[in-house]
Amino acid sequence: MAEKRYLFTPGPTPVPPEVLEALSRPIIHHRSSDFREIFGRCLDRLAEVYRTKGDVLVYTSSGTGGMESAVSNLTRPGDRVVVVSAGHFGERWATLARTFGCEVDELRYDWGESPTADDLAERLRELGGAKVVFTTHSETSTGVVADVQGLAAAAKDAGALVVVDAVSSLGAVPLETDAWSLDAVVSGSQKALMSPPGLATVSVSAAAWHAVEADSSPRYYFDWTRARERQAAFDPAFTPAVSTLVGLDVALGLLLAEGLEQAFERHARLGRACRAGVKAMGLDLFSPDDDRSAVVTAVIAPDGIDSGELVQTLRDRQGIVLAPGQGPLKGKIFRIGHIGYYDAFDITTALAGVELTLSELGAEIERGAAVTAALEAFEHTRV
Amino acid sequence: MAEKRYLFTPGPTPVPPEVLEALSRPIIHHRSSDFREIFGRCLDRLAEVYRTKGDVLVYTSSGTGGMESAVSNLTRPGDRVVVVSAGHFGERWATLARTFGCEVDELRYDWGESPTADDLAERLRELGGAKVVFTTHSETSTGVVADVQGLAAAAKDAGALVVVDAVSSLGAVPLETDAWSLDAVVSGSQKALMSPPGLATVSVSAAAWHAVEADSSPRYYFDWTRARERQAAFDPAFTPAVSTLVGLDVALGLLLAEGLEQAFERHARLGRACRAGVKAMGLDLFSPDDDRSAVVTAVIAPDGIDSGELVQTLRDRQGIVLAPGQGPLKGKIFRIGHIGYYDAFDITTALAGVELTLSELGAEIERGAAVTAALEAFEHTRV
Repeated sequence: MAEKRYLFTPGPTPVPPEVLEALSRPIIHHRSSDFREIFGRCLDRLAEVYRTKGDVLVYTSSGTGGMESAVSNLTRPGDRVVVVSAGHFGERWATLARTFGCEVDELRYDWGESPTADDLAERLRELGGAKVVFTTHSETSTGVVADVQGLAAAAKDAGALVVVDAVSSLGAVPLETDAWSLDAVVSGSQKALMSPPGLATVSVSAAAWHAVEADSSPRYYFDWTRARERQAAFDPAFTPAVSTLVGLDVALGLLLAEGLEQAFERHARLGRACRAGVKAMGLDLFSPDDDRSAVVTAVIAPDGIDSGELVQTLRDRQGIVLAPGQGPLKGKIFRIGHIGYYDAFDITTALAGVELTLSELGAEIERGAAVTAALEAFEHTRV
Repeated sequence: MAEKRYLFTPGPTPVPPEVLEALSRPIIHHRSSDFREIFGRCLDRLAEVYRTKGDVLVYTSSGTGGMESAVSNLTRPGDRVVVVSAGHFGERWATLARTFGCEVDELRYDWGESPTADDLAERLRELGGAKVVFTTHSETSTGVVADVQGLAAAAKDAGALVVVDAVSSLGAVPLETDAWSLDAVVSGSQKALMSPPGLATVSVSAAAWHAVEADSSPRYYFDWTRARERQAAFDPAFTPAVSTLVGLDVALGLLLAEGLEQAFERHARLGRACRAGVKAMGLDLFSPDDDRSAVVTAVIAPDGIDSGELVQTLRDRQGIVLAPGQGPLKGKIFRIGHIGYYDAFDITTALAGVELTLSELGAEIERGAAVTAALEAFEHTRV
């Protein structure tokens, strides 16, 4: 029998069968009424998920392409920007902003720390303001979900634009584009939006449109103004990933049928279940033990176990795919993603696999407790 | 019954059922051995289709993203470049190069004309050379397939790098990346590669690598150097469109199983069949009546018929999707694409639909001759 695979990486994430079916439908032309209907519905549904009355631009690219678009459309070489950074994806903002010639001030935390609004407010005071503050909502490399509402308020108080990497958070944890005054929010199809990778989405506020730089670094593919003009006619500037859009349309329908608040609650309970199981095994959490950590559970590998070897062994022996640690956390932590199409029994599968494999690798852990603890935590808690 | 659709647009093109099936498989992680095996095979197969021993980079983007990568990696603001332009996509090269600050000399033809190597050689002599010559292999907007071999030789004689837009030609008509000394060839997944849109491919020659500008305009997502480093480990820099890559792998397998030469011959015969049918109806061709025009057949709408109305009516009444004229050809021509997954009976369907609808719209055309003429031309000619 072909080995089954269980995908627990924090992106790409499993795609529901309804969406897989949609991906296998015959190709449609992107300049046809068939497409315009689907594309228009996608844009409406995205605005609902983003909770915005503003524009949501769609690019055929990874999430990083969406991030680049925010940097290249909102900044000019020499602009002072602040990057709030506490992990791999925070550092990507800094690299992108430096690549595009910004004068980057990094409010940098150790990987795994939670940025605070007070620190940002103080830094902005010291600097006398900044044009843009770049932040990360869910830092996928550590499992930390930042208080973007607080960070955004601090940035707006200082007169800065707020740009948010919400690639792994949008649709999984609460995010209010308009109510929190977020100027650009970047996400991707392959996380809580339950679709294959290949599409980046970027919301743009009225203030951000006002700040778009005509004389900045050259940009063409990721130019916001062209994208908006063409999307207004449901006629994308460049051939989009039509199959992925057809799938995304179905996936967004599933997400909105569940209800955004219900999806947020489900993710919070998945996080609780995962943390309860991990602790019942006697392992230590790396990501915070709080309800905001609903996206990725990061766990410290027990003494004597290399987390990379654990991930490799789980993959090879059980078909269970977790994520290893990145950067300074390589070898030290492993990450269980539960973003999107997951329920309680996905969590118990991941935990049972971890328990078995750690035991086989010789770690001293508690056997037989994790699955029960996880189900208890999932069933008997409400957010 | 749900209305059937017949897709004859020159991209996206129909996708074989084997590829549609592959698209609907469960998502795999892009940093796993499952993925590395598929990605490695895709890269090998792409090199075979490109006929190159050099690198073929893969980007999650439309073909335009691949075009932008060639401009941003090979030029600096102020560089003199020549753009050979005879239609919509030639003009895109000029726009891109100007956006990135190049001093653009356009060797510009009317839409539908065929560029010649002599014209290019003369222009390069007048200019005293250029850093890069940008060309279009198959100008999808007109159906003209240019003599890229000759154009490349003229450019190389003048010491310029040669960049080719082969988005709608690669895999359909002969293209020899190494033998013709092409420095960068841009293509896409959604034409003769018989996959959904969402992936751009770019070959890079040794000379092109040597010319990559470190201090050019800022670039990050489309940076060639990073893409090469990461592809060497089958570990893409950014989350790629994994489902589309899984499909592309299957599609490239089908193309290579047919054989490249056999695919080129099939496309030439499809072009002959389409032209024979169109002429049998009494219509005039817009694209050249020669064997190189094997990708798109462009046809002049008969007197009194707006080609946009014809395309719309065919779509609404018959479910047959052709492409209208673009730019200066709007309303004047219609285009029948036959790139990729097509056989003779696709051509007869398109022709039968055109014949019926033109007749309904009141055009004076010959009835009952096109299908037979097309099948005769397809069956009884060899390239």
